[in-house]
Amino acid sequence: MLLTGEVNLIYVTHTTALEGQCLIFPDAEAIFITDGRYTEVAEQQLIPQGFRVLTRSNLSGMYDFLRSVLESHGVKKLIYEDDVLTVDDFALMREQLQLVFQPVGSRIKKLRACKSPEEIECIVRAQRIAEAALERLLPELHAGITEREAAARLNYYMALGGSEKPSFDTILLFGENTSKPHGVPSDRALKPGDFILADFGAVYRGYHSDMTRTVAYGSATDEMRRVYETVLAAQAAAERIAKEDVLCCDMHEAAAKVIAGAGYGEYFTHALGHSVGLEIHEMPVASPRCDKPLRSGNVMTDEPGIYMPGKFGVRIEDMLVIQGDTPRNLTAFPKALQILPV
Amino acid sequence: MLLTGEVNLIYVTHTTALEGQCLIFPDAEAIFITDGRYTEVAEQQLIPQGFRVLTRSNLSGMYDFLRSVLESHGVKKLIYEDDVLTVDDFALMREQLQLVFQPVGSRIKKLRACKSPEEIECIVRAQRIAEAALERLLPELHAGITEREAAARLNYYMALGGSEKPSFDTILLFGENTSKPHGVPSDRALKPGDFILADFGAVYRGYHSDMTRTVAYGSATDEMRRVYETVLAAQAAAERIAKEDVLCCDMHEAAAKVIAGAGYGEYFTHALGHSVGLEIHEMPVASPRCDKPLRSGNVMTDEPGIYMPGKFGVRIEDMLVIQGDTPRNLTAFPKALQILPV
Repeated sequence: MLLTGEVNLIYVTHTTALEGQCLIFPDAEAIFITDGRYTEVAEQQLIPQGFRVLTRSNLSGMYDFLRSVLESHGVKKLIYEDDVLTVDDFALMREQLQLVFQPVGSRIKKLRACKSPEEIECIVRAQRIAEAALERLLPELHAGITEREAAARLNYYMALGGSEKPSFDTILLFGENTSKPHGVPSDRALKPGDFILADFGAVYRGYHSDMTRTVAYGSATDEMRRVYETVLAAQAAAERIAKEDVLCCDMHEAAAKVIAGAGYGEYFTHALGHSVGLEIHEMPVASPRCDKPLRSGNVMTDEPGIYMPGKFGVRIEDMLVIQGDTPRNLTAFPKALQILPV
Repeated sequence: MLLTGEVNLIYVTHTTALEGQCLIFPDAEAIFITDGRYTEVAEQQLIPQGFRVLTRSNLSGMYDFLRSVLESHGVKKLIYEDDVLTVDDFALMREQLQLVFQPVGSRIKKLRACKSPEEIECIVRAQRIAEAALERLLPELHAGITEREAAARLNYYMALGGSEKPSFDTILLFGENTSKPHGVPSDRALKPGDFILADFGAVYRGYHSDMTRTVAYGSATDEMRRVYETVLAAQAAAERIAKEDVLCCDMHEAAAKVIAGAGYGEYFTHALGHSVGLEIHEMPVASPRCDKPLRSGNVMTDEPGIYMPGKFGVRIEDMLVIQGDTPRNLTAFPKALQILPV
């Protein structure tokens, strides 16, 4: 099997700082091929794990080098990542290597969907970094600060806390902008009476976290409070039924039903959640169209929202590890409606 | 033609905040298909540019929706992005749409390789944001600050300056770590006598910048000065010959020759440069193995380096726009060896 995808390479090497290709043979021999930029790190990190490390000079092409390694092992058939290689990359590889190719299909994704305790520990570390950053940011928010500056500061605090990078483009929105589920931070300045919505995460050893909190600045109207409590109840409803063998779509429906029951059905416009791991969006997905069962070790986001264009939006998001009858909630940040002092 | 790749969509829509699919017909009609999360922004941004915007409900599958649009236009043949779609995505699309497919090949990449004045303006804006951030950071560096903290601060200053995100994972290294061309910022603390190497960039309207500067902290040995001057001379040599119709490999060789002539040939271990645009690495590449000619409008990095494992490394990087006989250097940050006060 040949692995070239960045994320699959982290999965098998437990190392984030490398580029290269990994060959895995039926007898479990593993070879990591890299170039001069990464040799030092590759040898330090991979040899103790049982890999052989080969360095290709930047004068020899990747496929020439790969062909010689494959020939010396008598390889006739190669399993390849059909979910990573683009059509043109695969055409080139097929032409260059002249072997029998077999797609890996969803096998690695399925392995990756069920997280080990060590992987969950990395996600928790990322989540704690993110929580500490938000805790530091909230008291600093003041009238006049822009969404862009607040987002920059949140990312800065995560980086200082040890995050390798933001888990995705941080969403940090004020007031009427909170009605855009994937809005981009702008020069909109904070003012009293605004909702503040932050959807963001940190990365630790390649593993992502994901959380959303919505807090009010100065005051909240009755409508804001009603919407907030509805989203919170919807989130709890999904958490209650999130267990092994429940269908992903049923998790979505549990939240959607609460929102529809409160009269806001048309304002919940996206799927309830997705899996999180080495990528921010993994399978399975808690969407109305996913009829796969939840499995022990899935790390799912539970993030219902109500978005009222021109007014405001509320989203509350935790990460849940599926395990037996009661999920483990990885998110420790409080969820009772918080009104920040002006 | 169907476009789904994030970067190609920015290229045709001039908008960064969207997700969706774009259909372009032979008569130049263009349809953008999106979902409820992006409808508001898509209509604001795209209708004035002549697009039709269609919103797909999250209950109907992407391919079902696409099929109905294609059928209503009598489409029989679809050009697709074989350099974007993965093998499994393409297999699914082929099965779902049942049309004749033709790969777009390198046609869009070739268009994107030659930047318009408007695109170059975006790259310059990104570059100025990056330069201002470094200018702010350098006087703040003090003995004891870690690589990680310095990198976090540099990213923060770029974000405050209007960068949409770091152009790539910021490389900011001290002392012996500077010998790793793609090192990752660690807890290594700054001390007098260190080289400080920063390789980083900003993003403006989706366009990336890329620069490297190496400065000394407190003092520099004769060897550090000699290596620095060699890299600087190598960079200038490549810039002098960077003109239309010169081969990419010759640009690399011009720099490599200077480094080899000074006796450091074995320590220049990577290609001289790459193109920059909506992606941080685009074609063509100034590598010893690229025999393509430079074209007017290519934006190439010119970034020779000398890396002495266990001791230190130096890299100096500017961006050059190829145009006629003399390139335009987009990088304004000074290059004479700077010794920061302790």
